[in-house]
Amino acid sequence: MALPQSAAIQDYQPEQPVDPSTYFEENPAPRNLALYEAKVEAFVRQHLDTGRRVALVTSGGTTVPLEVNTVRFMDNFSAGTRGATSAEYPCWSRAWTQGYAVIFMHRQFSLQPYSRHYSHTTNCFLDHMTLDNKGDINVGDQFRDRMSAVLAKYQKAKQEGTLIMIDFVTVTDYLFLLRSCSRIMSVLRAHALFYLAAAVSDFFIPAKNMAEHKIQSGDGGLTLHMDQVPKFLKPLLETDPHLLIPKARHALHRYGHQLVIGNMLNSRKWLVVLVDQHSEHEIRLSKEQLEQGVEIEEHIVKKLIEQHSAHIAAHS
Amino acid sequence: MALPQSAAIQDYQPEQPVDPSTYFEENPAPRNLALYEAKVEAFVRQHLDTGRRVALVTSGGTTVPLEVNTVRFMDNFSAGTRGATSAEYPCWSRAWTQGYAVIFMHRQFSLQPYSRHYSHTTNCFLDHMTLDNKGDINVGDQFRDRMSAVLAKYQKAKQEGTLIMIDFVTVTDYLFLLRSCSRIMSVLRAHALFYLAAAVSDFFIPAKNMAEHKIQSGDGGLTLHMDQVPKFLKPLLETDPHLLIPKARHALHRYGHQLVIGNMLNSRKWLVVLVDQHSEHEIRLSKEQLEQGVEIEEHIVKKLIEQHSAHIAAHS
Repeated sequence: MALPQSAAIQDYQPEQPVDPSTYFEENPAPRNLALYEAKVEAFVRQHLDTGRRVALVTSGGTTVPLEVNTVRFMDNFSAGTRGATSAEYPCWSRAWTQGYAVIFMHRQFSLQPYSRHYSHTTNCFLDHMTLDNKGDINVGDQFRDRMSAVLAKYQKAKQEGTLIMIDFVTVTDYLFLLRSCSRIMSVLRAHALFYLAAAVSDFFIPAKNMAEHKIQSGDGGLTLHMDQVPKFLKPLLETDPHLLIPKARHALHRYGHQLVIGNMLNSRKWLVVLVDQHSEHEIRLSKEQLEQGVEIEEHIVKKLIEQHSAHIAAHS
Repeated sequence: MALPQSAAIQDYQPEQPVDPSTYFEENPAPRNLALYEAKVEAFVRQHLDTGRRVALVTSGGTTVPLEVNTVRFMDNFSAGTRGATSAEYPCWSRAWTQGYAVIFMHRQFSLQPYSRHYSHTTNCFLDHMTLDNKGDINVGDQFRDRMSAVLAKYQKAKQEGTLIMIDFVTVTDYLFLLRSCSRIMSVLRAHALFYLAAAVSDFFIPAKNMAEHKIQSGDGGLTLHMDQVPKFLKPLLETDPHLLIPKARHALHRYGHQLVIGNMLNSRKWLVVLVDQHSEHEIRLSKEQLEQGVEIEEHIVKKLIEQHSAHIAAHS
């Protein structure tokens, strides 16, 4: 059976696991890194002055390109629902706290806060609007209340400057951006919250081993060797229920998180488990709650903010 | 170096190229296949009666899942711009012909005709609307003309029933749907047009070799063996300019298309080459045209319709 023609990939022999300390030297930074750093820096400085807490919310899957001029890539399943939904709550929920400012770091074209309510596929805004004989655009009666509510929250976040968006595509973009945000946010001390909901790739092809052009398909199959992404942090989206709690505990020990939010692929919209060093706390929505449009992210964020407040109190 | 724990994948030895005749027995049909077949069947029958031509436009990339409960997948780069843009023109461009009815077969969540003008990332509709003190929603003055124009075309397509949408995710979904559409559309004879703009995977993992749950990352890398997708049809999105024309010609000979639209990844928005058995025809937009918002798809579709009309004349 013939091998594909791309020498760069077929000849590659996996070596030792990738060294975290040289990862950022050996892989290219995203082009817009300096721009995004300046944007985040200004945002953090502004909210440091007002005393508002700042949350970094990551969202969506990261890709692993197989070619430098990328046609093919490996991806992780994630529409970005968890992240986009969670990012809305801290912005406007003043009932619990003074509110957070949110850096929404998301996969390009994944769901975003507010506009997520009008996915083009399932709830397209064009279907909610009509053009009358005079050429005026009207929002249909049955859609007006909901659209007004979304628009009001969106405008409030814009006016108060409590939301910025930065985006990534590849796992390398993601890691560079995360490192930069962490450094910039360090001045916030206990007032910084990291809510990492992105689905991050486990494996990647280092820049030096990547084919330049699209890998040509000959008459045979394709064999790919991928390295493991250095374990700066670890995603946790399982499909096997037996692995959920042990993996969450393992991540707590290994990466020093305060909390891991575990979920299963098939039940993630109505069941999550919050695991910390000492306990497990389950959040489960009833069928009635789901039908009423309650979102589990509201409950996750509420719980997170409680714990964050306790953490701040303990450190002040 | 340790191998990943998934026996299903690591033990798999590539065999002979996959047999096209057994592909549909050995890989699972998409769940909604019967539903979509009924929808397309009704649509085709309606337009067969009115004598309107019907175009199948495919759009977006196909995925190759690595697990049955899919967390990871291989994907092809495509936002669906070419397909979604092209699908708008035949619906309303009566200046050229009586118009086409369009079956828009697209990757789930990729761009769609009409709503594509309001991508949530680059041109979010929420930014075009304001909420006044009385709670009424208004479209900003500077956005109204454009939104009215898009809405008018969208409503016309809806009212006349000239557009249906069906979606796919994996390359197997895509191939099943394409086969069904081809069979159903055969009654249209020369009045059927197949505009295949989707970016289709070259390689896949057959169902029998797929891991059930998310492949666990041990301490090593990942080695994947993938089979070649049977060459029912072939995509053509190149990054290497030397391969473009020879590959287009090869595809014409091998698959019996009437026309191949070749484009390069980096110039696809302003340069395409239409290749048929006897000639090559270049379509190139000037910088001024691009700045004025001219879309290359308008010119592609116009040329296609001319050729389709000639084809119909030759066969009647």
